[in-house]
Amino acid sequence: MQRALATPREPNFAEWYQTVVREADLAEVSPVRGSMIIKPWGYGIWEQIQRQLDGRIKETGHDNCYFPLFIPLSFIAREAQHVEGFAKEMAVVTHHRLKKTNGVLAPDPDAKLEEPLVVRPTSETIIGDAFSRWIKSHRDLPLMINQWANVVRWEMRTRLFLRTSEFLWQEGHTAHADASEAMAESLKILELYREFSESVLAMPVIAGEKPANERFPGAVNTYSIEAMMQDGKALQAGTSHYLGTHFSEAQDIRFQNEAGELTACHTTSWGVSTRLIGGVIMVHGDDDGLRLPPAIAPRQILIVPMLRNKPEDADVLGYCESLATALSREIALNDRIRVQVDTKDIRSADKRWNWVRRGAPIIVEIGPRDVANGQVTYMRRDRLRNGDKVQSSSLPRDKFVAEAAGMLADIQVRLFSEAKTRLESNIRSDIQTFDELAEHFSGGGDDDEDSAEFRGWVRVSWSRPEGAALEAIDERLKRLKVTIRNAPLGQSEAPLGKCIFTGDPAVQEILIARAY
Amino acid sequence: MQRALATPREPNFAEWYQTVVREADLAEVSPVRGSMIIKPWGYGIWEQIQRQLDGRIKETGHDNCYFPLFIPLSFIAREAQHVEGFAKEMAVVTHHRLKKTNGVLAPDPDAKLEEPLVVRPTSETIIGDAFSRWIKSHRDLPLMINQWANVVRWEMRTRLFLRTSEFLWQEGHTAHADASEAMAESLKILELYREFSESVLAMPVIAGEKPANERFPGAVNTYSIEAMMQDGKALQAGTSHYLGTHFSEAQDIRFQNEAGELTACHTTSWGVSTRLIGGVIMVHGDDDGLRLPPAIAPRQILIVPMLRNKPEDADVLGYCESLATALSREIALNDRIRVQVDTKDIRSADKRWNWVRRGAPIIVEIGPRDVANGQVTYMRRDRLRNGDKVQSSSLPRDKFVAEAAGMLADIQVRLFSEAKTRLESNIRSDIQTFDELAEHFSGGGDDDEDSAEFRGWVRVSWSRPEGAALEAIDERLKRLKVTIRNAPLGQSEAPLGKCIFTGDPAVQEILIARAY
Repeated sequence: MQRALATPREPNFAEWYQTVVREADLAEVSPVRGSMIIKPWGYGIWEQIQRQLDGRIKETGHDNCYFPLFIPLSFIAREAQHVEGFAKEMAVVTHHRLKKTNGVLAPDPDAKLEEPLVVRPTSETIIGDAFSRWIKSHRDLPLMINQWANVVRWEMRTRLFLRTSEFLWQEGHTAHADASEAMAESLKILELYREFSESVLAMPVIAGEKPANERFPGAVNTYSIEAMMQDGKALQAGTSHYLGTHFSEAQDIRFQNEAGELTACHTTSWGVSTRLIGGVIMVHGDDDGLRLPPAIAPRQILIVPMLRNKPEDADVLGYCESLATALSREIALNDRIRVQVDTKDIRSADKRWNWVRRGAPIIVEIGPRDVANGQVTYMRRDRLRNGDKVQSSSLPRDKFVAEAAGMLADIQVRLFSEAKTRLESNIRSDIQTFDELAEHFSGGGDDDEDSAEFRGWVRVSWSRPEGAALEAIDERLKRLKVTIRNAPLGQSEAPLGKCIFTGDPAVQEILIARAY
Repeated sequence: MQRALATPREPNFAEWYQTVVREADLAEVSPVRGSMIIKPWGYGIWEQIQRQLDGRIKETGHDNCYFPLFIPLSFIAREAQHVEGFAKEMAVVTHHRLKKTNGVLAPDPDAKLEEPLVVRPTSETIIGDAFSRWIKSHRDLPLMINQWANVVRWEMRTRLFLRTSEFLWQEGHTAHADASEAMAESLKILELYREFSESVLAMPVIAGEKPANERFPGAVNTYSIEAMMQDGKALQAGTSHYLGTHFSEAQDIRFQNEAGELTACHTTSWGVSTRLIGGVIMVHGDDDGLRLPPAIAPRQILIVPMLRNKPEDADVLGYCESLATALSREIALNDRIRVQVDTKDIRSADKRWNWVRRGAPIIVEIGPRDVANGQVTYMRRDRLRNGDKVQSSSLPRDKFVAEAAGMLADIQVRLFSEAKTRLESNIRSDIQTFDELAEHFSGGGDDDEDSAEFRGWVRVSWSRPEGAALEAIDERLKRLKVTIRNAPLGQSEAPLGKCIFTGDPAVQEILIARAY
């Protein structure tokens, strides 16, 4: 069978992933180690994500701000745990001028900074410093802000969208009068991320709390949403942290409460990044390339005119333009339909396959016969093939225009259901002992992480040990190349039996999986 | 007379500017040398600017992308003129890890980069490198992209929004098959900037070409829009560059033309930045603070409930909320009206003055009497006072809702007309000799740039000398603390007399002014 991609998902999912990123024209490796270039189709997806997430962040009372890219070294040093977590991977600015000496351009030794500046890996410290100035009284609380920004965490082994030294994200930072309000904020955002991921990205996730060893440096609790990729691995798609008073004590973020006492604020932070695009690819892509949920497709309907350098070309083009105008007046998924006529000077068949690989939800092909019959011939990317054969359908023009919004909504729902079924049917919950767990995850392709066999996730009971006991468990899991993803929220109160690690009475269930 | 600001525009405009930035809660100096924190109201203005400019950039066929923050040093070194222009002011990353030694955190000597990375001062070189890979044939042209990003140019003396080491901007980069197409693009964008500045920012500008000595490093032609601030100085509000083949030759951006020959592309670049916000402040602000054109006001109508901790408060609040809902359904200046009820727990009079200082176009105050009479009492920020007295008006509620959009449009127009009149009536064009020019710009407050007396601009004829002759002129002008702003486009063909610098026959008119 002829597929639009040279590399199918099986047997090498990682190679397939790279192929999709390239063939869907989403991004490419840049000449700057660890950084990527996000190309128009990839950036267009990010813009759709940004717009819709930003709306939700504002509706829940957060204001956008912008804080400096550079953070003085002394700020980073101030919060001990935070340093431990990040100190290993930061880009450091040490000079503010270049100089040509004997024809060679180099940092000017006379322009060495007194205090080095770190390129922000995250902005807790610089935003905390502002909070300490902005917050005086309980009337200033809660203070709830968000920023869209680039951040840098030096990475040696990178993968486009999933792990790059520079990436784009939003980071929310809030300060509250007490623990319960701050905790409620952390959980509200976690739910916001879950709803956004499921309804906009069509990506089902499980929201839960990270174990102690996977917390954000300096956090009291870290929550995450975890999505299942088609290779059975987990992708942490968003995190929300309750920071307690760790940062506020270190940075003097205090307020005078109604009784007049100076009290440390309770803070939170939370973020999602361009990594979400990697998740979308690995959840929805198929052997023909990307499949985009209509809610984030930069263009939802692509119209390809079948031109033959003949006089009737003008009619075909005119028909396409008028169809595009009619479609762009319709509302699908709360926005005007995003439609484009592809007039690029290449063969129509190439255009079709370009848009298949890029995952455009609906691809329309218009030839002279369609014009003559007043009809629209189209393919739905979510059901591109019937067996091996590409399937296209035709509808009278007005009927197509009237039904387009419904089709897009249907594609959105179908992509979600498909992924939801995959997630639900691939979490084993019958494992009772560590040996069974080891057996489940061992063997077959272990040595090459990238071509590991599909094993899904496992949901087991544990006694929630911390400290050295947890570290020991972490080591055992590492040998299986898996990690604890999270303890799902909203667990039932049913008795849980014994912890598969310690044999002690279990207190909660956790998800274990291989992960990105 | 009681004003909302402690510092009027006269006699110290610079101090007034800083006061407005602070009192309107737009931005503040950060602890990172030369970088600013953009606060919610300031960032909200930037978001409005971004949204509306981005729409125009996309409508003219440009796609958004994202390129790396870091640029390898060797890329910068490749384009000689470009290096000269920027080499003096770049932030340089030299290490990728920190290390704690004897309790002190510092760049890890073992993590020194082989090649230093420059934090982008602008992205010609890194984008040019991508263009050289993306462009193969004439079918790939024109290639027209844009990016919204942060950039860093080290500055010793900074002023919020106007000159900061890190700032936010958009940078467009295009490649074309020939000079005329590239030149047309440069001019099209210049016109786009002019239209945007005038219709969205209500800021009249003069579009023209920069003299050779003011060109962007590596450009063949640089065009600018120049706006007149209320102290008579010019602000360069946007630039568009025709780069010829300087960058494409240096970076190997070539295409195979229809005859099969490998040919260098002609490229352009263009940008506007957060500096525009500084322009808006200095064009529209008054002694009561900022006045925002409704098209960029994050909130256009602020509703202040006059609460007294009495039972009728609930009615007042309900009335305000219902008014806000009705207003937010109306369309003004092509968008839904942006309205907010200010429920903050502070005195109503303080709220009024906060919004006056922040420049909200319409401020509504609702008390029990308004509720009883079914009316709306409001102030227009563009005509806040009648003489010294603050003037407010009342309208029946439904009439106010029906007229609100028209009022906002009227405020937009009036702010523009006021600034346009100021611009037009403050350009002297009767100066014939350098001595007259010197007399016009000399004396009175020269020593302190910030408190210079209002002198407006001068439009004179010149012979357009280049090279050493131009440098000599530049020196003479520097002594007057003025520069050539640009040669306005669309000059009449009338004879021009003699060049005021050289005495040679003049070929065009230029604007001379003090500038930011």
